[in-house]
Amino acid sequence: MPIGVGVIGAGIVGGGAIHTLLTHRDVITTRSGVDLVLVHVADLDTARLAEFDLRGVTVSNDAAKLIQDPNVQIVCELIGGLEPARTFILNALKAGKHVVTANKMLLAHHGPELCRAAVDHRVELRYEASVAGGIPIIRSIREGLSADRIKAIYGILNGTCNYILSRMTEDGHEFDEALRQATALGFAETPPDLDIEGHDTAHKCQILTSLCFSTEVDFDALYIEGITRITHADVAYANDLGYAIKLLAIIQDQEDGIEARVHPTLVPHGHQLAAVRNEFNAVYVESDVADATLYYGRGAGRFPTASAVVADVIDVARGIGALPAPPFVYAKKRAVLDIGAVTSRYYLRLTTLDKPGVLGKVCTILGNYGVSIASCIQQEVRDGKPVPVVLMTHETREAELRKALAEIDQLEFTREATHAIRVLQE
Amino acid sequence: MPIGVGVIGAGIVGGGAIHTLLTHRDVITTRSGVDLVLVHVADLDTARLAEFDLRGVTVSNDAAKLIQDPNVQIVCELIGGLEPARTFILNALKAGKHVVTANKMLLAHHGPELCRAAVDHRVELRYEASVAGGIPIIRSIREGLSADRIKAIYGILNGTCNYILSRMTEDGHEFDEALRQATALGFAETPPDLDIEGHDTAHKCQILTSLCFSTEVDFDALYIEGITRITHADVAYANDLGYAIKLLAIIQDQEDGIEARVHPTLVPHGHQLAAVRNEFNAVYVESDVADATLYYGRGAGRFPTASAVVADVIDVARGIGALPAPPFVYAKKRAVLDIGAVTSRYYLRLTTLDKPGVLGKVCTILGNYGVSIASCIQQEVRDGKPVPVVLMTHETREAELRKALAEIDQLEFTREATHAIRVLQE
Repeated sequence: MPIGVGVIGAGIVGGGAIHTLLTHRDVITTRSGVDLVLVHVADLDTARLAEFDLRGVTVSNDAAKLIQDPNVQIVCELIGGLEPARTFILNALKAGKHVVTANKMLLAHHGPELCRAAVDHRVELRYEASVAGGIPIIRSIREGLSADRIKAIYGILNGTCNYILSRMTEDGHEFDEALRQATALGFAETPPDLDIEGHDTAHKCQILTSLCFSTEVDFDALYIEGITRITHADVAYANDLGYAIKLLAIIQDQEDGIEARVHPTLVPHGHQLAAVRNEFNAVYVESDVADATLYYGRGAGRFPTASAVVADVIDVARGIGALPAPPFVYAKKRAVLDIGAVTSRYYLRLTTLDKPGVLGKVCTILGNYGVSIASCIQQEVRDGKPVPVVLMTHETREAELRKALAEIDQLEFTREATHAIRVLQE
Repeated sequence: MPIGVGVIGAGIVGGGAIHTLLTHRDVITTRSGVDLVLVHVADLDTARLAEFDLRGVTVSNDAAKLIQDPNVQIVCELIGGLEPARTFILNALKAGKHVVTANKMLLAHHGPELCRAAVDHRVELRYEASVAGGIPIIRSIREGLSADRIKAIYGILNGTCNYILSRMTEDGHEFDEALRQATALGFAETPPDLDIEGHDTAHKCQILTSLCFSTEVDFDALYIEGITRITHADVAYANDLGYAIKLLAIIQDQEDGIEARVHPTLVPHGHQLAAVRNEFNAVYVESDVADATLYYGRGAGRFPTASAVVADVIDVARGIGALPAPPFVYAKKRAVLDIGAVTSRYYLRLTTLDKPGVLGKVCTILGNYGVSIASCIQQEVRDGKPVPVVLMTHETREAELRKALAEIDQLEFTREATHAIRVLQE
């Protein structure tokens, strides 16, 4: 039976959710066994819905109407900010509707009130998209690490700040220039204060702290420091000392209380978090059974955030239908391709006698099968012993390469079977 | 109401699950709202249960008895291998028991049969621990990315192989020596063939392929190549060319079929997977809504694997109780520590006039507050302009540091407020 979904807010994130619900109905049904139908969209500016094919979908400029629509079983609140989002969510919960939200500011300030309303009305409130966008971090902490005591979390949770710090580190820019670039690329909002002053990261820090320590957390008790005072000199000195500067949310379980703070932090170059570049987010979790785990991906943007919103909708819908998830879903059986059909670049290590014309002969054979060479390392002769010749190929079909190597390995000057290793190709 | 759990097999993983169930009952109840009780343990060698406090727990050397025990609602199969594991699981499912397993070999070879039995008997079969140990990758793909079409997966799924390749790369060892080290450290099993020949990785590759494309996959159709032919020369040449060699499971959705293969692969140095060192695992997922996400952690070992097993038990138990999970659990409220109580190492950038005795005076003040210096960068004088002095401190309390900096910033030769940045401390 189809489950009716309503979306309040058709901005960046709301538009992404609408698009995903409209285009992914089949894959969602196959993978999760639920049939989701977008039945109602509400936005003050219905003109911006023109890009979507909303035939059969109720469109209104009044969220209250959507909340009361009997066809809507799950409400997605995607307008952000404190009000009227808070009122919309409370009214939806009171009306017995499940709610999915991406609203980190609202959760950080009014989490307990919203949670109480959800529990009181026996409906679900889900918020995967509120922290780290497309990274399923809420689920991973809540369900993946449900047997663990969480000891600490270190999170890069704001893509704008991480992009700015990356540009300062890699391009030698000062803060203002890096911020200008982030704004030009659409990463930074106008005004950018919520991002660069650390408040957006702090909202997410508050949510993660509540979640992993099962406790109410006063948002005002968090220490918050942004990145506006970081200079290129700081980034350069830190680099010389062996560190990258990152804006981190730091959460630690201490005996006398919880540490929950947001500030620029020197991260040693070998640490996984130091390698998180540009607009990407990552969350590093230390827990007492699983030990260290890390989750990495896009923390913002229309579709990564929509992925989290719709995943929450699917979970809630599964609960409504009380659908037991089968361990695997087996749709139409699909063939696994033979390795010969794979295309890849290859590393080839040939072991040959060092005689004139060897490389030419090898390249001719490869060329006959359409395998072309991207680069070559040939070492100097060492008293007549076999020498390795290393070749990197351009992309080629494995079946052709194998034929070529079979010929090469038959040559009189070849001393060992050629070793071919495939190159990662995304 | 307590949910009864039975564990078959008290080896490395089973022992970890027993320990976690015995010691984490309180945190599990707080975080997830379910009360799990270990009620039955079965192992052929009951002597090795001596390390656990099993008062009140039924102990037997007969798995059939455990499966028929009416107090057992969830059965954990943790003996591994094809038989008798397969029979135990099928009998448990037929008896209406939910099953949690870590058995990748069994799932790779008999997944459809087990899945059918679970669906037929309306019980759950969970297997988070079968792939990448403590990393919640099954959940992340199945639920976190449930709205996405999965396009490709690149996984480092065998810690032994990754450890061996890391030693070859970083220490210049040949394969045999690196394998010896892995065996000495307990990473490699005896005999190590399942690991180094790629079969263990292939089992996990088969499970992920079935899961993300909702299709049956013939295990025998996978191309499998291990790491035994990799030499130190290969690793060194690859490094010169800008690549790390990793044993990858590669899964790609192609129009004419699925690519599912396991082989050593050159991964460009900038790629997140190239930075995964030693015994760690990581899974890189490309999907059409969330885009790229990566999951990193310990892929094996007693407790990381137990974390995944017990997390599955908790999920199943929540389903038995039909417990709606509250958005947040608020147990006793805990205080957030004031930033002054935080201890950290600090990067300090002072901007001072370049006069004799400046550094001495600064260090004296820091010393008065117990702040000691780990290293220092002072640039050369430039025509009387203020110069930066960069200091790295040892660990200190923030409150003391702030008092010291307040004094330093009042000194006559100080030209700008000192910039302090905290250093990551795990």
